[in-house]
Amino acid sequence: MEVGEGLAVFQGAPGGGHLNPMGTVHGGWFATLLDSALGCAVHTRMPPGRGYTTAELGVNLVKALTPKVQRVRAEGRVVHCGRQLATAEARLVGPDGTLYAHATTTCLVFDMPAQSKG
Amino acid sequence: MEVGEGLAVFQGAPGGGHLNPMGTVHGGWFATLLDSALGCAVHTRMPPGRGYTTAELGVNLVKALTPKVQRVRAEGRVVHCGRQLATAEARLVGPDGTLYAHATTTCLVFDMPAQSKG
Amino acid sequence: MEVGEGLAVFQGAPGGGHLNPMGTVHGGWFATLLDSALGCAVHTRMPPGRGYTTAELGVNLVKALTPKVQRVRAEGRVVHCGRQLATAEARLVGPDGTLYAHATTTCLVFDMPAQSKG
Amino acid sequence: MEVGEGLAVFQGAPGGGHLNPMGTVHGGWFATLLDSALGCAVHTRMPPGRGYTTAELGVNLVKALTPKVQRVRAEGRVVHCGRQLATAEARLVGPDGTLYAHATTTCLVFDMPAQSKG
Repeated sequence: MEVGEGLAVFQGAPGGGHLNPMGTVHGGWFATLLDSALGCAVHTRMPPGRGYTTAELGVNLVKALTPKVQRVRAEGRVVHCGRQLATAEARLVGPDGTLYAHATTTCLVFDMPAQSKG
Repeated sequence: MEVGEGLAVFQGAPGGGHLNPMGTVHGGWFATLLDSALGCAVHTRMPPGRGYTTAELGVNLVKALTPKVQRVRAEGRVVHCGRQLATAEARLVGPDGTLYAHATTTCLVFDMPAQSKG
Repeated sequence: MEVGEGLAVFQGAPGGGHLNPMGTVHGGWFATLLDSALGCAVHTRMPPGRGYTTAELGVNLVKALTPKVQRVRAEGRVVHCGRQLATAEARLVGPDGTLYAHATTTCLVFDMPAQSKG
Repeated sequence: MEVGEGLAVFQGAPGGGHLNPMGTVHGGWFATLLDSALGCAVHTRMPPGRGYTTAELGVNLVKALTPKVQRVRAEGRVVHCGRQLATAEARLVGPDGTLYAHATTTCLVFDMPAQSKG
């Protein structure tokens, strides 16, 4: 949806296939959208030749999400970006500003091999 | 795959649709499988009339997972189960025992409404 | 140092007794100051008769702290405060604004016994 | 108390100076003992010339601890130890085996400068 220096925003629509047995959206769906926003926020701070990998992801689920909420936005922002380590925070909010979850990530930062093929 | 007292095991096969831009499996896919195992492990310890909800999920990703690994197992085990709070740990391992990720969850435990239909 | 609605600020001076074997300040010292700021921020949002307890504390240590840094401030802010659950975030910064650590907490919220003596 | 390959055990006695305003032991005291056990467990797996630093520490507090409990043991064990990343888990238990807290850490692993002076 939006990318800036140290910022990345994703949007998603929870569907019937994302529900847990209690009829609310699965924590893994929250984690996927938040991890995408966090990782891409960190990505915006990587200069050429530098890569990152997610080492740790912590998600706080503060309000149950149901498919009645038509879309949510995950906004990720870099908190720290150093030589070996980057961290970022994200929030998952509904169209009316309701907070459903927030998350923090710890990423390893490293030099990429010169001609990486994936 | 397996359910016991305080234990739940899920199995999954990472596919091409679960990859991140770097060609490895998305952290959200790890989190989904681990959260399922953690939640169901806690579920096995809930007596009638008691429910739980995930408040926090922490995932450590220790090794990149590619679709070459044909299936992984997420094994969740309850660590603590009290009146208000339950915690559980899980490991995500490959067919050869390789550890790809581990996780911890914090769940709220509460009395369920008498005639919940949700 | 400062307390407001959903906000609490602590200050500390790392001393020689707080060092780990590598000559930098022990992670436990960071955690203590951050946990104080987080807990007190949540405390400001508790109405009479309601209490809280810390269920989970996650700390990201992003820069080594030495006793050369004469004082640091831990600023805690509530992110969510509901009937059963409260979450808060905190940052640990030096006098020049350098970020040394940040943290997130998950607290259980409950009714206090009517005549608690403990 | 005890050190082995990938294992470290610390013991502590919570005192009156470690209490929070609610009369129970401060989360920071838990975190300090657990972080010591976690860090030293990782330390046992470092070959000469390799060092580590704690990037993230997550603590689950599952039972209030009072000074009536005369001593607790923090047992830390390495879960993963790779080239860039190490993780470990720890438990804080009383003399009768009661679990008070558990924790997970994410450490960065790196080559030490040849003649580091601290």
